[in-house]
Parts: sequence; structure tokens; C-alpha cells
Amino acid sequence: MAKQYDVIVIGGGPAGTAMASGLKAQGKSVLIVEADLWGGTCPNRGCDPKKILLSAVEAKQAATNLQSHGLAGIPKVDWPALMATKRGYTNGINDGTLNGLQAQKIETIHGQAYFQTDGQLTVDGEVVNGTDIVIATGQRPAILPIKGHEYFKTSTDFLDLDAMPKRVTFVGGGYVGFELATIARAAGAEVHLIHHNDRPLKEFDPELVKALMANLTTQGVTFDLDVDLKQITKTATGLTLSDGQGFKLDTDLVICSAGRLPNDDHLGLENVGVTVGRHGIQVNDHLQTAAAHIYAIGDVSDTPVPKLTPLAGYEARYLVGELVKSGAAITYPVVPTQVYASPKLAKVGVTAVQAAKAPTKYRISSLDMTKWFTYYRLQTPQALAKVVVDRQSGLIVGASCLSEIADEMINYLTLLIQKQISLSEMQKLVVAYPTPASDLQYLY
Amino acid sequence: MAKQYDVIVIGGGPAGTAMASGLKAQGKSVLIVEADLWGGTCPNRGCDPKKILLSAVEAKQAATNLQSHGLAGIPKVDWPALMATKRGYTNGINDGTLNGLQAQKIETIHGQAYFQTDGQLTVDGEVVNGTDIVIATGQRPAILPIKGHEYFKTSTDFLDLDAMPKRVTFVGGGYVGFELATIARAAGAEVHLIHHNDRPLKEFDPELVKALMANLTTQGVTFDLDVDLKQITKTATGLTLSDGQGFKLDTDLVICSAGRLPNDDHLGLENVGVTVGRHGIQVNDHLQTAAAHIYAIGDVSDTPVPKLTPLAGYEARYLVGELVKSGAAITYPVVPTQVYASPKLAKVGVTAVQAAKAPTKYRISSLDMTKWFTYYRLQTPQALAKVVVDRQSGLIVGASCLSEIADEMINYLTLLIQKQISLSEMQKLVVAYPTPASDLQYLY
Repeated sequence: MAKQYDVIVIGGGPAGTAMASGLKAQGKSVLIVEADLWGGTCPNRGCDPKKILLSAVEAKQAATNLQSHGLAGIPKVDWPALMATKRGYTNGINDGTLNGLQAQKIETIHGQAYFQTDGQLTVDGEVVNGTDIVIATGQRPAILPIKGHEYFKTSTDFLDLDAMPKRVTFVGGGYVGFELATIARAAGAEVHLIHHNDRPLKEFDPELVKALMANLTTQGVTFDLDVDLKQITKTATGLTLSDGQGFKLDTDLVICSAGRLPNDDHLGLENVGVTVGRHGIQVNDHLQTAAAHIYAIGDVSDTPVPKLTPLAGYEARYLVGELVKSGAAITYPVVPTQVYASPKLAKVGVTAVQAAKAPTKYRISSLDMTKWFTYYRLQTPQALAKVVVDRQSGLIVGASCLSEIADEMINYLTLLIQKQISLSEMQKLVVAYPTPASDLQYLY
Repeated sequence: MAKQYDVIVIGGGPAGTAMASGLKAQGKSVLIVEADLWGGTCPNRGCDPKKILLSAVEAKQAATNLQSHGLAGIPKVDWPALMATKRGYTNGINDGTLNGLQAQKIETIHGQAYFQTDGQLTVDGEVVNGTDIVIATGQRPAILPIKGHEYFKTSTDFLDLDAMPKRVTFVGGGYVGFELATIARAAGAEVHLIHHNDRPLKEFDPELVKALMANLTTQGVTFDLDVDLKQITKTATGLTLSDGQGFKLDTDLVICSAGRLPNDDHLGLENVGVTVGRHGIQVNDHLQTAAAHIYAIGDVSDTPVPKLTPLAGYEARYLVGELVKSGAAITYPVVPTQVYASPKLAKVGVTAVQAAKAPTKYRISSLDMTKWFTYYRLQTPQALAKVVVDRQSGLIVGASCLSEIADEMINYLTLLIQKQISLSEMQKLVVAYPTPASDLQYLY
């Protein structure tokens, strides 16, 4: 007879494992199903490996910035050693995650889950029943359906390259393209980034994106804008990319970085009436799908927030509460997003573009911080910020930053925004000086 | 006739200039007097120049840590270029500060202030009268009164060295000694740090100090503990240090880093009944001295907080309010303190040593974070923390950190402590992942 669980979680990534752990701690019987690597995208082929590779880039950039200003000599990226360091982390993720789940006495199955009826799944043929089912299957890189698309590699491949090819091209100017282009360039590759219009990173402030591109161009990245790639051809020595309108580029590796697709196919959702859209599985504000006992969280779920690891955990914690005792609709905090390029670009809350539409409500400060002490001492080529302040309350409600430490700044700013910390409160806080945090009072 | 001001501020450092600006903005007539460099210790010969020199150390250390893990080659500290970068900042401070004051139409005099009576000073002979007088004269390095003390140099000299000598010795294991020893060692000097007992950095957690010393020893710093230095002798090739009991050390430069003394002499305080103690000018909890119309703020003032730049500004803002309309006694927030060594050591709030005396009230977590993702990716040799949580509230009330990013961590922790942010509130905040800020939830 098929085993019966209180909850079956499909997907063993950050969302699914947080869900399973939370439910188990609440006394629920839980089965978690994973078709690929336990741990999911983030630690295996996402944020974590990317940031390990970025460590070498950051240290190299820091030394580069200080040439003629206090350091002599620029270290080279040692790609095989860097990849070994990455693998030293990622190689342990699958087993470590699985062991962690089993140590919590959460049942696990490896295989492809498929909905038979509401409440019943098969996993590679084995039938399992769950009172509630939570889908947390994440996303995967999209592949543009052009001629020769079989030559596309993805971020997953890039993050596990044994050697850095001489010429690397990214197709698609989202955060993945910018981040991996930065890494490839620092590792010595000739890098192109192709984008179909002239506005990559469209959700970020246009002026800061332009400044980021200028910095990357100085570092040697070539941007091919307004190129609508049509074809990849294999040649004797590599690949040729073309748009059929005169653009031609020879390269050794082409990464499709044109967005990510929800893993909502192959699940048999049509059997249970769960509906999907372009941005994933449709859910209400209780993260419930069109089927009452089926929920979706994390990257696969069409929620009004960016697809980020901490939101996976956030949604899991909410849904654990819901499945124990249903309550209020989910609400989200302000969510910072960042591009780990060189320099880094980050934003949170109300953007300057949004604020400019309501000038009586918002004040926008455009700050060139390049000569501020914090950046002078690092000799960063450029440090910019746009800060949006609510005129009535005097509180910061949004910010964008471009600098080597934009991720640190955006975290502080997120705390200021979420906890509604005013300038006078900030001035009553004593933080270490001189640090990025001690600059905060100058951002209001 | 002598000019009359609402307020005369003695000292043009961070405390005095903040005081003068604040009072001027409130419509007061203000005179500010400085005997040395406008801007004071912090930007001329303190935190700021130190952190500029540290930039090269940090970048070199980051590259060193990643050898065999992603980078090949360690940049060398180029001392003349580093010093030029420092001077590029410090050279502009005196005039920039003075111009800033004058732009605010604050009157300035350069000279030595001397109290004649309550309400009257002479500055290099010129008589000026003030209804209220604020003393903000700061501190200076102490010089141990041993034989040959005339050969001692100070942090001021170190921060302006044209060339790094082959052998540099620091006498006194406080934060200045540790920080400058780290810089000298990274710049290639053979470095000794002499301390009179076996417990340098006594206000920091003993285990973390021990770990810091082990790290610095690995980098090549030699600690000479329990050495009570008695004599410095000039030799044909340098200096010889001895304790008269068998300890002998040849060196080229000896820096006295045995604490700092309040600049409360030479002011004629005895003429107006202002009392001083070992830790500076005695004040009540309104920052008022024994003379009703004379106040003291910043490093020269004996207040129950560490002598730090942000507290100078904090006390100035408080006293501006007091001089406009007297109110409540001053209260202080939690104050983080840090040692910018390599790695960095920082603390805030209740220490583990204090907490261990009240085990029913506090829970202490001793964390070895070295293998956490944040530190793994940087390949930091060691990352440790001790976190003190109030058992009843579940709130963090204190922490000590040792790592390359301890300053960043301690700033976040200061925010958590001061704003009383609980674990559940922290989990409702979404910060960039994976970053030091996203580790915070694991510290409770």
C-alpha cells in the first residue's frame, strides 16, 4: 500500500529543505523528493559557487585598484585551484544535505515526482500519498531556441569549467551574464556580452547600469548591444555567433544567460488543475495553488518578489506556519537585489525612477561617493548611490548603490528601511569608524 | 577690548568642530581655537591614515589567503606609494577643516588657549571671553619615562614614515600597538611587540586575543610578553632595548604604544577649578566640569565610554542641545570597539567574561565560524565569535568577533543590539545572500 504523509515536499533545495525541516519540527510526517542534486541550485550551481569564484575576482580587483597607491603586483586568477576550492565546497553539498534531512528523520526519495491525483504522486513509479503537497522545484537556465542552440552552455556549466577558454561569450544581459562575465574576464578570457536591446539589467537604475558597463568595459569586457542573436555555428576552431544582419563573433564558449525558467513541467500539474504562467506556478497570497492542498514556494512559485534564496526560506517559514494553523496572507519585507559584478550593483526598495514620478512624495539624492574616505582608501574607480527619502517621514525608502562594497551598503540600507531607522536614530547609534556603516548618516 | 562669544570651543578635532558647527547652526556666536592641526587626531594622525595604510594590508592578506585556492601571486606593499596615498588624504585635512569652519562663519584662532578666569581665555596672549567654554583638546601618545625615552617615536611618526625600517618594535600591546605592528609586518619589517605582562588587549576576550596573537605570530610578528622595558640605548647601527634582566633586542625604530594621555595640561585649568584625573577632565553626566560654564567632550573628557571618534560627535551633538536648552543627562548607546589587526578583533556590549559571571541571565555561544561559507570562500585562517544572549528576552546583548571582516560583523551586531532586533524579526528581514549579514540569524 502507498505510504501516507502529512506533507510531501517536491524539491530538495533551500525552499524545500527549509519546508521539510520546519514541518518536521512541528511534528508532521514529511517526505521530501529530489530529482537532481540535494541542496538545489543555490549551493550546487548558484549563489554559493559563484561567490567562491568571485572571491578571487574581488581580491584581484582590490589589489589592482591599489597599484601605484600602496601595492605592487597583481595576483593572477589560478582557475584550476579556484575550481578545486569551489568543488571542495560543492562536492559535499548533495550528501551533506541528504544526511542532514535524514538526521532529522525526514523521509527522502530521489526521483522525479509526478502528480497522479490531488494527494497522490508517483516518484519514478512508486506511489506516495500526502495530505498536503508543496512544490519547491526551482528554476533552470532558459535556452534561447535559435539555430545551433545545442551549442549553448549554461551557468551550471560555467560554474564547473575545468579550464577557462580563451574566448567566452554570454548571451543575455541579466545578472547572471554580468556576474559570470566579470569572473571570466578576471580569469583572463576575452569576454563578450550580447544583449538584444540597449538596456541590460533593466530592473536596475539606468545611470548606474551605464556606469557599471563603463567599468567593465575598462576591464576589457565587450558589450554587443542591440544584437538579436540568430545562429550558432560550429567551426574548425570554435563557434561563430551571428545575427544574420552583419554581426559575427568567433568564440570558444557561449553561455546562454537569457533568464531562467520555472521547473513546472514534467510534474503532471495538468492532472490536478494546478495552473502555471510565464513566471511559474500561480499561487494566491497564502502560497496555495489552484488546487486547495497543493502549494508552491521558492523560485518555481509566481510571487511578486525576486527569485532569491532568502525568500525561499522566508516563504517556507510562512508556509510551515500556514500548514500548522492557517492565518494571515503572506507579506514580504523590502528585498535587496544585487549584481555581483565588479563593481557591484545593488538596490532595495523604491527606485529613483519610481520616485521621480512622485516628486512631492520623494526626495532623490544622487551621490558620487568616489572621493569619500571609504572609497578613497580602497582606490575604487567609482562609487555611486541614489537614495530615495520619503519627504514626510524623512526615512530612507529605497536606494541603489554601485561600488566594490555595494552588497554591504545595501544590507545596512535594508536594515534602515525595514526597521524605519531615522537619521536622528542613526546618529544615536555608535558604529565602528571609519566604516561603510559610519557613512550611513550621510545618505539621508 | 576682548571679544565676547556665546561659546568658545578649545580644540579643532572631531569633537570641537562638531560642537562649533552645531552651535553655529543654532545661532550662537562661536570661536574655535586649535593649537596644532585643524581636524585633530582622527583624520590627521589617527583612524583615517591608519585605515588608508590598512587598505594595502587587507588587500595583500586577501590575496595571501587565496594562494593555492584561486590566486597566484602576492602583491607587495609599496610603502612610498602607500604613504603618498595617505598624504594625498591627510595633506588636505588642515586647510579643508579650517575652510569648512570659515565657510560656516565660525571664528577661528590658531594658538594655545589658556584659562585666565572662568569665562576668559588667552590664546597666545590674545584675550577672548566666552559665556560658555567647551574643552575638546583630545589625547596624545603617552611616552614611558624610561632611560633613553627620547628615542621613542609615536604612532604619529609611524603614520608618516617615509620608509619602513628593517626592524620595528612596539612597546605596549594595546590596539595601537597591534594595528601598527600588523601594518609594519605586512610592509616587510621584522616586528616585535613588547608587553609588560602576558595579557595584551586586556579589554578584549582572552581566548580571541590569544587566537589573534597566534595569527600574527604565523605572519611573523614576535611577541615579547612579560617584558618590563627599562632602557633604550643608541648603538652604531640602531637601538638596543633592554629590561635589565636579560631581555635584549636590537631594532631600528621603537614606537611607544603604551596608551594615550589627555591633553588637559597647559590649559591653566588650575586657574578655574576644573579638576582632572588619570583619564582626563572630570565631568558630570551633563559633560560639565567642576566649573559651571566649562564643559569637556571627546577624548580629553573622563566619560565612561571608549575614546572613539563617533563618540566625539555624539557628545558634541548632546552638548549643543544642552547649551541651547538644558535637559536630561547624557546616556550612551552600546559602543563597538575594534582592533584593525589581521585578522580584526571587535567587540560590543556584554562580554563573555562578564556574562559567565551571570549564567542564569546570559547564554554564551562560542562559535568557530572558520568553515562557514562566508569564511571558506575567503579562505580566512580563522574566524571566531562569542555571542552573549539574554536568556529571558532571547536578544543578543553582546558579541566579540575575530575575523578579516569582524568590523563589518560588529556593526551589524551593534544595530541588532541597539535596535533590539530578535531572531524572529531577523528572519523576517531579507538581506543579500550569502553575505556576512545573512549569517546573523545563526549567531543567536
